[in-house]
Amino acid sequence: MKIYGDIKSGNCYKLKLICALLDIEHDWIPVDIMQGETREEGFLALNPVGQIPICVTDDGETLTESNAILYYLSSDSDFWPRERLAQTRVLEWQFFEQYTHEPNIAVARFIRVYQGMPEERRLEYEARLKNGYRALDLMERHLDDRRFLVGDSCTIADISLFAYTHVCEEGGFDLSSYPAIRAWISNVQQLPGFVAMPMTPSS
Amino acid sequence: MKIYGDIKSGNCYKLKLICALLDIEHDWIPVDIMQGETREEGFLALNPVGQIPICVTDDGETLTESNAILYYLSSDSDFWPRERLAQTRVLEWQFFEQYTHEPNIAVARFIRVYQGMPEERRLEYEARLKNGYRALDLMERHLDDRRFLVGDSCTIADISLFAYTHVCEEGGFDLSSYPAIRAWISNVQQLPGFVAMPMTPSS
Repeated sequence: MKIYGDIKSGNCYKLKLICALLDIEHDWIPVDIMQGETREEGFLALNPVGQIPICVTDDGETLTESNAILYYLSSDSDFWPRERLAQTRVLEWQFFEQYTHEPNIAVARFIRVYQGMPEERRLEYEARLKNGYRALDLMERHLDDRRFLVGDSCTIADISLFAYTHVCEEGGFDLSSYPAIRAWISNVQQLPGFVAMPMTPSS
Repeated sequence: MKIYGDIKSGNCYKLKLICALLDIEHDWIPVDIMQGETREEGFLALNPVGQIPICVTDDGETLTESNAILYYLSSDSDFWPRERLAQTRVLEWQFFEQYTHEPNIAVARFIRVYQGMPEERRLEYEARLKNGYRALDLMERHLDDRRFLVGDSCTIADISLFAYTHVCEEGGFDLSSYPAIRAWISNVQQLPGFVAMPMTPSS
Protein backbone atom coordinates (compact mmCIF):
# COMPACT_ATOMS: atom_id res chain seq x y z
CA MET A 1 0.00 0.00 0.00
CA LYS A 2 1.20 3.48 -0.88
CA ILE A 3 0.13 6.72 0.75
CA TYR A 4 0.84 10.01 -1.01
CA GLY A 5 0.89 12.91 1.39
CA ASP A 6 2.55 15.79 3.18
CA ILE A 7 3.11 14.80 6.79
CA LYS A 8 2.60 18.38 8.03
CA SER A 9 -0.88 18.51 6.49
CA GLY A 10 -3.40 17.41 9.10
CA ASN A 11 -5.45 15.51 6.55
CA CYS A 12 -2.37 13.46 5.61
CA TYR A 13 -1.19 13.05 9.18
CA LYS A 14 -4.52 11.35 10.00
CA LEU A 15 -3.36 8.42 7.86
CA LYS A 16 0.17 8.40 9.28
CA LEU A 17 -1.39 8.19 12.74
CA ILE A 18 -3.91 5.42 12.06
CA CYS A 19 -1.19 3.37 10.32
CA ALA A 20 1.01 3.75 13.41
CA LEU A 21 -1.79 2.92 15.85
CA LEU A 22 -2.88 -0.14 13.86
CA ASP A 23 0.63 -1.11 12.74
CA ILE A 24 -0.28 -0.98 9.04
CA GLU A 25 2.67 -1.34 6.68
CA HIS A 26 2.84 1.24 3.93
CA ASP A 27 5.15 3.27 1.72
CA TRP A 28 4.87 6.98 2.34
CA ILE A 29 5.39 9.05 -0.79
CA PRO A 30 5.96 12.72 0.02
CA VAL A 31 3.97 15.22 -2.04
CA ASP A 32 4.68 18.93 -1.62
CA ILE A 33 1.53 21.06 -1.96
CA MET A 34 3.50 24.31 -1.70
CA GLN A 35 5.54 23.28 -4.76
CA GLY A 36 2.31 22.66 -6.68
CA GLU A 37 2.86 18.92 -6.90
CA THR A 38 -0.86 18.14 -6.42
CA ARG A 39 -1.59 20.14 -9.60
CA GLU A 40 0.84 18.15 -11.75
CA GLU A 41 -0.50 15.83 -14.43
CA GLY A 42 0.85 12.63 -12.88
CA PHE A 43 -0.84 13.36 -9.58
CA LEU A 44 -4.11 14.50 -11.14
CA ALA A 45 -4.24 11.15 -12.98
CA LEU A 46 -4.31 9.50 -9.55
CA ASN A 47 -6.71 11.99 -7.97
CA PRO A 48 -8.55 14.39 -10.30
CA VAL A 49 -9.70 16.44 -7.29
CA GLY A 50 -6.02 17.37 -6.78
CA GLN A 51 -6.06 16.80 -3.03
CA ILE A 52 -3.82 14.83 -0.71
CA PRO A 53 -3.75 12.38 0.93
CA ILE A 54 -4.47 9.52 -1.38
CA CYS A 55 -3.96 5.84 -0.75
CA VAL A 56 -3.17 3.33 -3.50
CA THR A 57 -3.97 -0.21 -2.42
CA ASP A 58 -1.96 -3.27 -3.44
CA ASP A 59 -4.78 -4.01 -5.91
CA GLY A 60 -4.16 -0.65 -7.55
CA GLU A 61 -7.30 1.06 -6.24
CA THR A 62 -6.84 4.78 -5.59
CA LEU A 63 -8.68 5.99 -2.50
CA THR A 64 -9.32 9.67 -1.79
CA GLU A 65 -10.77 11.77 1.07
CA SER A 66 -8.84 11.32 4.31
CA ASN A 67 -11.88 10.44 6.42
CA ALA A 68 -13.06 7.80 3.95
CA ILE A 69 -9.55 6.29 3.90
CA LEU A 70 -9.60 6.17 7.71
CA TYR A 71 -12.74 4.05 7.41
CA TYR A 72 -11.08 1.78 4.85
CA LEU A 73 -8.04 1.24 7.07
CA SER A 74 -9.88 0.75 10.35
CA SER A 75 -13.31 -0.76 9.73
CA ASP A 76 -12.31 -4.17 11.09
CA SER A 77 -10.63 -2.67 14.17
CA ASP A 78 -11.78 -1.09 17.44
CA PHE A 79 -11.39 2.34 15.85
CA TRP A 80 -14.72 1.72 14.05
CA PRO A 81 -17.43 0.74 16.56
CA ARG A 82 -19.68 -2.28 16.05
CA GLU A 83 -23.08 -0.65 16.77
CA ARG A 84 -24.93 1.37 14.16
CA LEU A 85 -25.65 4.28 16.51
CA ALA A 86 -22.00 4.60 17.53
CA GLN A 87 -20.92 4.27 13.89
CA THR A 88 -23.31 7.11 13.03
CA ARG A 89 -21.80 9.23 15.82
CA VAL A 90 -18.33 8.65 14.34
CA LEU A 91 -19.55 9.78 10.93
CA GLU A 92 -21.30 12.82 12.47
CA TRP A 93 -17.99 13.99 13.91
CA GLN A 94 -16.14 13.29 10.66
CA PHE A 95 -18.63 15.32 8.63
CA PHE A 96 -18.51 18.05 11.29
CA GLU A 97 -14.73 18.01 10.87
CA GLN A 98 -14.85 18.45 7.10
CA TYR A 99 -17.66 21.01 6.97
CA THR A 100 -17.40 23.08 10.15
CA HIS A 101 -13.97 22.48 11.69
CA GLU A 102 -11.31 21.97 9.00
CA PRO A 103 -12.34 24.84 6.67
CA ASN A 104 -11.82 27.22 9.59
CA ILE A 105 -9.14 25.70 11.80
CA ALA A 106 -6.92 24.19 9.11
CA VAL A 107 -7.27 27.13 6.75
CA ALA A 108 -6.45 29.66 9.51
CA ARG A 109 -3.24 27.68 10.16
CA PHE A 110 -2.48 27.57 6.45
CA ILE A 111 -2.87 31.34 6.07
CA ARG A 112 -0.77 32.08 9.16
CA VAL A 113 1.98 29.43 8.98
CA TYR A 114 2.33 28.61 5.30
CA GLN A 115 1.38 31.91 3.70
CA GLY A 116 2.79 34.15 6.45
CA MET A 117 -0.51 36.02 6.89
CA PRO A 118 -0.73 38.07 3.70
CA GLU A 119 -2.62 41.33 4.18
CA GLU A 120 -5.27 40.44 1.56
CA ARG A 121 -6.33 37.37 3.53
CA ARG A 122 -6.44 39.03 6.96
CA LEU A 123 -10.20 39.65 7.01
CA GLU A 124 -10.83 36.09 5.89
CA TYR A 125 -8.43 34.87 8.57
CA GLU A 126 -10.37 36.74 11.27
CA ALA A 127 -13.63 35.18 10.10
CA ARG A 128 -12.10 31.72 10.12
CA LEU A 129 -10.73 32.31 13.61
CA LYS A 130 -14.18 33.27 14.87
CA ASN A 131 -15.89 30.26 13.26
CA GLY A 132 -13.05 27.99 14.36
CA TYR A 133 -13.61 29.00 17.99
CA ARG A 134 -17.26 28.10 17.56
CA ALA A 135 -16.20 24.59 16.46
CA LEU A 136 -13.82 24.33 19.43
CA ASP A 137 -16.60 25.44 21.80
CA LEU A 138 -18.77 22.56 20.59
CA MET A 139 -15.95 20.07 21.06
CA GLU A 140 -15.15 21.43 24.53
CA ARG A 141 -18.76 21.10 25.65
CA HIS A 142 -18.98 17.55 24.32
CA LEU A 143 -15.64 16.41 25.76
CA ASP A 144 -16.35 17.88 29.20
CA ASP A 145 -17.27 14.48 30.67
CA ARG A 146 -15.75 12.19 28.04
CA ARG A 147 -12.31 10.72 27.35
CA PHE A 148 -12.97 10.31 23.63
CA LEU A 149 -15.57 11.68 21.19
CA VAL A 150 -17.61 8.45 20.80
CA GLY A 151 -17.83 5.73 23.45
CA ASP A 152 -15.05 4.84 25.86
CA SER A 153 -12.17 4.32 23.47
CA CYS A 154 -10.48 6.08 20.59
CA THR A 155 -12.25 5.90 17.21
CA ILE A 156 -11.46 7.38 13.81
CA ALA A 157 -13.64 10.34 14.86
CA ASP A 158 -10.88 11.26 17.32
CA ILE A 159 -8.17 10.76 14.69
CA SER A 160 -10.06 13.05 12.28
CA LEU A 161 -10.53 15.83 14.83
CA PHE A 162 -7.15 15.43 16.52
CA ALA A 163 -5.21 16.15 13.32
CA TYR A 164 -5.89 19.87 13.11
CA THR A 165 -7.07 20.53 16.67
CA HIS A 166 -3.77 19.61 18.31
CA VAL A 167 -1.87 22.10 16.15
CA CYS A 168 -4.54 24.80 16.11
CA GLU A 169 -2.39 27.12 18.22
CA GLU A 170 -0.02 27.38 15.23
CA GLY A 171 -3.01 28.92 13.44
CA GLY A 172 -3.51 31.51 16.18
CA PHE A 173 -6.04 29.74 18.42
CA ASP A 174 -5.52 29.76 22.18
CA LEU A 175 -6.50 26.54 23.96
CA SER A 176 -5.86 27.82 27.49
CA SER A 177 -9.58 28.07 28.24
CA TYR A 178 -10.33 24.66 26.69
CA PRO A 179 -9.29 22.19 29.41
CA ALA A 180 -11.42 19.32 28.10
CA ILE A 181 -9.88 19.60 24.64
CA ARG A 182 -6.38 19.70 26.16
CA ALA A 183 -7.11 16.59 28.25
CA TRP A 184 -8.48 14.82 25.16
CA ILE A 185 -5.38 15.75 23.13
CA SER A 186 -3.31 14.18 25.86
CA ASN A 187 -5.51 11.03 25.82
CA VAL A 188 -4.82 10.59 22.11
CA GLN A 189 -1.09 11.25 22.57
CA GLN A 190 -0.92 8.49 25.18
CA LEU A 191 -2.30 5.79 22.88
CA PRO A 192 0.11 2.89 22.33
CA GLY A 193 1.92 3.41 19.03
CA PHE A 194 1.14 7.14 18.81
CA VAL A 195 3.36 9.12 16.43
CA ALA A 196 3.63 12.90 16.56
CA MET A 197 3.29 15.25 13.62
CA PRO A 198 6.70 16.82 12.86
CA MET A 199 7.01 20.42 14.01
CA THR A 200 6.31 23.01 11.34
CA PRO A 201 9.33 25.14 10.41
CA SER A 202 8.01 28.25 12.10
CA SER A 203 6.75 26.66 15.31
CA MET B 1 -38.81 8.89 14.50
CA LYS B 2 -38.92 12.63 13.94
CA ILE B 3 -37.04 14.58 11.29
CA TYR B 4 -36.64 18.33 11.66
CA GLY B 5 -35.98 20.01 8.36
CA ASP B 6 -36.83 22.38 5.54
CA ILE B 7 -37.88 20.34 2.53
CA LYS B 8 -36.39 22.88 0.09
CA SER B 9 -32.95 22.53 1.66
CA GLY B 10 -31.02 19.87 -0.21
CA ASN B 11 -29.47 18.53 2.99
CA CYS B 12 -32.95 17.99 4.43
CA TYR B 13 -34.41 16.65 1.20
CA LYS B 14 -31.77 13.87 1.28
CA LEU B 15 -33.62 12.42 4.27
CA LYS B 16 -37.06 12.90 2.76
CA LEU B 17 -35.86 10.99 -0.29
CA ILE B 18 -34.22 8.06 1.53
CA CYS B 19 -37.32 7.69 3.74
CA ALA B 20 -39.48 7.53 0.60
CA LEU B 21 -37.19 5.07 -1.18
CA LEU B 22 -36.93 2.79 1.86
CA ASP B 23 -40.49 3.37 3.05
CA ILE B 24 -39.37 4.59 6.48
CA GLU B 25 -42.16 6.00 8.63
CA HIS B 26 -41.40 9.36 10.22
CA ASP B 27 -42.89 12.63 11.40
CA TRP B 28 -41.56 15.60 9.45
CA ILE B 29 -41.29 18.74 11.56
CA PRO B 30 -40.79 21.85 9.42
CA VAL B 31 -38.05 24.23 10.52
CA ASP B 32 -37.66 27.55 8.71
CA ILE B 33 -34.02 28.65 8.43
CA MET B 34 -34.94 31.97 6.87
CA GLN B 35 -37.02 32.80 9.97
CA GLY B 36 -34.00 32.02 12.16
CA GLU B 37 -35.62 28.96 13.72
CA THR B 38 -32.31 27.01 13.77
CA ARG B 39 -30.87 29.75 16.02
CA GLU B 40 -33.63 29.49 18.61
CA GLU B 41 -32.88 28.05 22.03
CA GLY B 42 -35.19 25.06 21.71
CA PHE B 43 -33.57 23.98 18.47
CA LEU B 44 -30.01 24.58 19.69
CA ALA B 45 -30.76 22.30 22.64
CA LEU B 46 -31.40 19.55 20.08
CA ASN B 47 -28.45 20.45 17.83
CA PRO B 48 -25.86 22.89 19.19
CA VAL B 49 -24.33 23.26 15.70
CA GLY B 50 -27.60 24.96 14.68
CA GLN B 51 -27.95 23.06 11.42
CA ILE B 52 -30.80 21.13 9.86
CA PRO B 53 -31.68 18.37 9.25
CA ILE B 54 -31.70 16.50 12.51
CA CYS B 55 -33.31 13.16 13.24
CA VAL B 56 -34.65 12.20 16.67
CA THR B 57 -34.98 8.44 17.04
CA ASP B 58 -37.74 6.72 19.01
CA ASP B 59 -35.12 6.14 21.73
CA GLY B 60 -34.63 9.91 21.97
CA GLU B 61 -31.21 10.02 20.31
CA THR B 62 -30.60 13.18 18.28
CA LEU B 63 -28.66 12.56 15.08
CA THR B 64 -27.01 15.36 13.10
CA GLU B 65 -25.17 15.73 9.76
CA SER B 66 -27.34 14.70 6.80
CA ASN B 67 -24.82 12.24 5.35
CA ALA B 68 -24.33 10.47 8.70
CA ILE B 69 -28.10 10.21 9.08
CA LEU B 70 -28.32 8.67 5.60
CA TYR B 71 -25.92 5.98 6.85
CA TYR B 72 -28.04 5.44 9.96
CA LEU B 73 -31.22 5.03 7.94
CA SER B 74 -29.79 2.83 5.19
CA SER B 75 -26.92 0.73 6.52
CA ASP B 76 -28.96 -2.48 6.46
CA SER B 77 -30.32 -1.81 2.96
CA ASP B 78 -28.93 -1.98 -0.58
CA PHE B 79 -28.22 1.75 -0.41
CA TRP B 80 -25.11 0.89 1.68
CA PRO B 81 -22.96 -1.68 -0.13
CA ARG B 82 -21.67 -4.82 1.59
CA GLU B 83 -17.98 -4.63 0.53
CA ARG B 84 -15.46 -2.44 2.29
CA LEU B 85 -14.07 -0.96 -0.91
CA ALA B 86 -17.52 0.00 -2.20
CA GLN B 87 -18.43 1.39 1.25
CA THR B 88 -15.28 3.51 1.12
CA ARG B 89 -16.26 4.78 -2.33
CA VAL B 90 -19.65 5.83 -0.95
CA LEU B 91 -17.96 7.75 1.86
CA GLU B 92 -15.48 9.34 -0.58
CA TRP B 93 -18.39 10.80 -2.54
CA GLN B 94 -20.16 11.92 0.62
CA PHE B 95 -17.07 13.75 1.88
CA PHE B 96 -16.55 15.19 -1.59
CA GLU B 97 -20.11 16.43 -1.40
CA GLN B 98 -19.67 18.19 1.94
CA TYR B 99 -16.22 19.66 1.25
CA THR B 100 -16.06 20.38 -2.48
CA HIS B 101 -19.60 20.29 -3.87
CA GLU B 102 -22.12 21.62 -1.34
CA PRO B 103 -20.16 24.71 -0.19
CA ASN B 104 -20.13 25.87 -3.82
CA ILE B 105 -23.26 24.50 -5.46
CA ALA B 106 -25.66 24.82 -2.51
CA VAL B 107 -24.33 28.18 -1.39
CA ALA B 108 -24.53 29.62 -4.93
CA ARG B 109 -28.20 28.58 -4.99
CA PHE B 110 -28.76 30.08 -1.55
CA ILE B 111 -27.25 33.42 -2.57
CA ARG B 112 -29.22 33.54 -5.83
CA VAL B 113 -32.60 32.08 -4.85
CA TYR B 114 -32.98 32.83 -1.15
CA GLN B 115 -31.01 36.05 -0.84
CA GLY B 116 -31.87 37.42 -4.29
CA MET B 117 -28.18 37.95 -5.19
CA PRO B 118 -27.20 40.87 -2.97
CA GLU B 119 -24.46 43.02 -4.51
CA GLU B 120 -22.05 42.41 -1.60
CA ARG B 121 -22.05 38.67 -2.25
CA ARG B 122 -21.65 38.83 -6.04
CA LEU B 123 -17.88 38.26 -6.09
CA GLU B 124 -18.25 35.34 -3.70
CA TYR B 125 -21.06 33.98 -5.89
CA GLU B 126 -18.83 34.07 -8.97
CA ALA B 127 -16.09 32.17 -7.12
CA ARG B 128 -18.57 29.54 -5.95
CA LEU B 129 -19.92 29.19 -9.47
CA LYS B 130 -16.40 28.55 -10.80
CA ASN B 131 -15.56 26.00 -8.10
CA GLY B 132 -18.99 24.43 -8.45
CA TYR B 133 -18.39 23.81 -12.15
CA ARG B 134 -15.14 22.09 -11.21
CA ALA B 135 -17.12 19.73 -8.95
CA LEU B 136 -19.64 19.10 -11.75
CA ASP B 137 -16.79 18.37 -14.20
CA LEU B 138 -15.51 15.65 -11.88
CA MET B 139 -18.95 14.11 -11.54
CA GLU B 140 -19.51 14.26 -15.31
CA ARG B 141 -16.25 12.47 -16.03
CA HIS B 142 -16.99 9.78 -13.46
CA LEU B 143 -20.60 9.24 -14.57
CA ASP B 144 -19.69 9.05 -18.25
CA ASP B 145 -19.90 5.23 -18.30
CA ARG B 146 -21.89 4.62 -15.11
CA ARG B 147 -25.54 4.60 -14.13
CA PHE B 148 -24.81 5.43 -10.48
CA LEU B 149 -21.79 6.77 -8.59
CA VAL B 150 -20.78 3.48 -6.91
CA GLY B 151 -21.51 0.03 -8.35
CA ASP B 152 -24.57 -0.83 -10.39
CA SER B 153 -27.34 0.44 -8.16
CA CYS B 154 -28.27 3.56 -6.24
CA THR B 155 -26.43 4.13 -2.93
CA ILE B 156 -26.54 6.92 -0.38
CA ALA B 157 -23.66 8.50 -2.33
CA ASP B 158 -26.17 9.21 -5.11
CA ILE B 159 -28.74 10.54 -2.64
CA SER B 160 -26.12 12.90 -1.15
CA LEU B 161 -25.02 14.27 -4.50
CA PHE B 162 -28.46 14.29 -6.13
CA ALA B 163 -29.90 16.67 -3.54
CA TYR B 164 -28.15 19.84 -4.69
CA THR B 165 -27.03 18.73 -8.17
CA HIS B 166 -30.55 18.28 -9.52
CA VAL B 167 -31.51 21.83 -8.56
CA CYS B 168 -28.15 23.45 -9.37
CA GLU B 169 -29.66 25.34 -12.31
CA GLU B 170 -31.66 27.37 -9.77
CA GLY B 171 -28.25 28.52 -8.52
CA GLY B 172 -27.19 29.64 -11.99
CA PHE B 173 -25.43 26.51 -13.25
CA ASP B 174 -26.13 25.28 -16.76
CA LEU B 175 -26.24 21.50 -17.18
CA SER B 176 -26.69 21.50 -20.96
CA SER B 177 -23.09 20.34 -21.54
CA TYR B 178 -23.30 17.69 -18.79
CA PRO B 179 -25.17 14.81 -20.47
CA ALA B 180 -23.90 12.16 -18.05
CA ILE B 181 -25.10 14.14 -15.03
CA ARG B 182 -28.48 14.69 -16.69
CA ALA B 183 -28.83 10.96 -17.42
CA TRP B 184 -27.86 10.14 -13.82
CA ILE B 185 -30.44 12.62 -12.47
CA SER B 186 -33.04 10.83 -14.53
CA ASN B 187 -31.85 7.44 -13.21
CA VAL B 188 -32.42 8.63 -9.64
CA GLN B 189 -35.81 10.13 -10.53
CA GLN B 190 -36.93 6.78 -11.94
CA LEU B 191 -36.29 4.85 -8.72
CA PRO B 192 -39.42 3.20 -7.28
CA GLY B 193 -40.77 5.42 -4.51
CA PHE B 194 -38.93 8.56 -5.65
CA VAL B 195 -40.34 11.84 -4.31
CA ALA B 196 -39.50 15.19 -5.84
CA MET B 197 -38.31 18.27 -3.96
CA PRO B 198 -41.06 20.91 -4.05
CA MET B 199 -40.37 23.75 -6.46
CA THR B 200 -38.77 26.83 -4.92
CA PRO B 201 -40.98 29.95 -4.99
CA SER B 202 -38.91 31.65 -7.70
CA SER B 203 -38.32 28.69 -9.99
